[in-house]
Amino acid sequence: MPDREPLDVLDAIHTTRAQRYLKPDPIPEDVLWQILDAAIRGPTGGNQQGWGWVVIRDPAIKQQIAEVYSERLLSAYGYGRVSDEELGTARITRGGVAEGEVGIDQRNRRGVVHLAEYYAEVPVIVAPVMQTAARMDDNTRRAGAGLGGSIYGAMQNLMLAARAFGIGSVLTWTLDEGTFFRDLLGLPENSFVMGLIPLGYLERGRFSQARRKPLGEVVHWDRWGEQRDAPESGR
Amino acid sequence: MPDREPLDVLDAIHTTRAQRYLKPDPIPEDVLWQILDAAIRGPTGGNQQGWGWVVIRDPAIKQQIAEVYSERLLSAYGYGRVSDEELGTARITRGGVAEGEVGIDQRNRRGVVHLAEYYAEVPVIVAPVMQTAARMDDNTRRAGAGLGGSIYGAMQNLMLAARAFGIGSVLTWTLDEGTFFRDLLGLPENSFVMGLIPLGYLERGRFSQARRKPLGEVVHWDRWGEQRDAPESGR
Repeated sequence: MPDREPLDVLDAIHTTRAQRYLKPDPIPEDVLWQILDAAIRGPTGGNQQGWGWVVIRDPAIKQQIAEVYSERLLSAYGYGRVSDEELGTARITRGGVAEGEVGIDQRNRRGVVHLAEYYAEVPVIVAPVMQTAARMDDNTRRAGAGLGGSIYGAMQNLMLAARAFGIGSVLTWTLDEGTFFRDLLGLPENSFVMGLIPLGYLERGRFSQARRKPLGEVVHWDRWGEQRDAPESGR
Repeated sequence: MPDREPLDVLDAIHTTRAQRYLKPDPIPEDVLWQILDAAIRGPTGGNQQGWGWVVIRDPAIKQQIAEVYSERLLSAYGYGRVSDEELGTARITRGGVAEGEVGIDQRNRRGVVHLAEYYAEVPVIVAPVMQTAARMDDNTRRAGAGLGGSIYGAMQNLMLAARAFGIGSVLTWTLDEGTFFRDLLGLPENSFVMGLIPLGYLERGRFSQARRKPLGEVVHWDRWGEQRDAPESGR
């Protein structure tokens, strides 16, 4: 077992956030196994475990994912349409990301762009796959969100376990459309990549708490709209 | 802050499993706030936080949920159609669950039936709600699974944080259909209860590891079907 310091579960939860600046340094295989062993303890409806976890280290496969990810980012998410000014001069080019004072929103966008640029260089990309008897376009509720309920919890376990080893991660690209992944990874029919999780040691940033709305604003007591202020958390 | 022992994140992950035998004893409000504060650190696409967390303690509301849950269990999941013999004499009646030697499958079913019977008596039920601009039946991929990717991780955080306080939980009932919850909880339009999480101290059982297929069977290296045996985990 690789050495690591114990990390309290609440501390782990409060310091696991999207990390998009990842070093190319390899992750020991034994660590990967431990992270995956944690993942599969997550909820799976009826203990069906209709999942597979593809651990991608092959540079050629990573390169193809990086290219498609950048393309999609440009087209679907509109990153290609924002001006340089808006983006704090960050762009998807191989020239690196400009430095300078940027706001939180811009910083986040810059992180997204950075990851797109360097996606092929992260040491590991995990592709969690769900296999289902149901057709994905059959019944939104069961096949869509219901399917997610049987894997996204395990994916969170995976990211928390990575954190325990000082490894950063981020959940990107929520659902496979078309046959790109089926062809790339040789997936069976009715299999869907439910997201992509790049893993790597931190190149920049630290394990800090994700910013969220005040807790009292999103908690309702018995009925929607019955709200109170949350106590100071002390974190 | 209530006292609790630190719990390593990997230990927490490996001992968080579906707990269906829960005591009616109340959970301190400060503990609930801490659990919810952990939940909201989970992934939320674009930091949109389109979620609300309804904390249900009102006996009348719990009773209505319990009734609908039992009904659905009987009809949709076929528990009403299995024989007493199959179910190890466990039934949805107010008479309690018979003791005796039962297999794993039967034990699991008996747990499900037990929870259905006592759902109204758990101290707290958390209903995580997603609000979305998209119609749920609009686009399976984005609205269904994509939506799930922005809340089920947070729900896993919630269950792990509960574990840190010695509180058991289980993810039940993966998606709201119809207007039952909208009416019951006064939810706004385009809001969906993504699951129900009963919380309570353990009445029976312990925090043990969920049984899963051997890790090597569900992990694929670079391409689907490229598999190896996992090392002994030591757990």
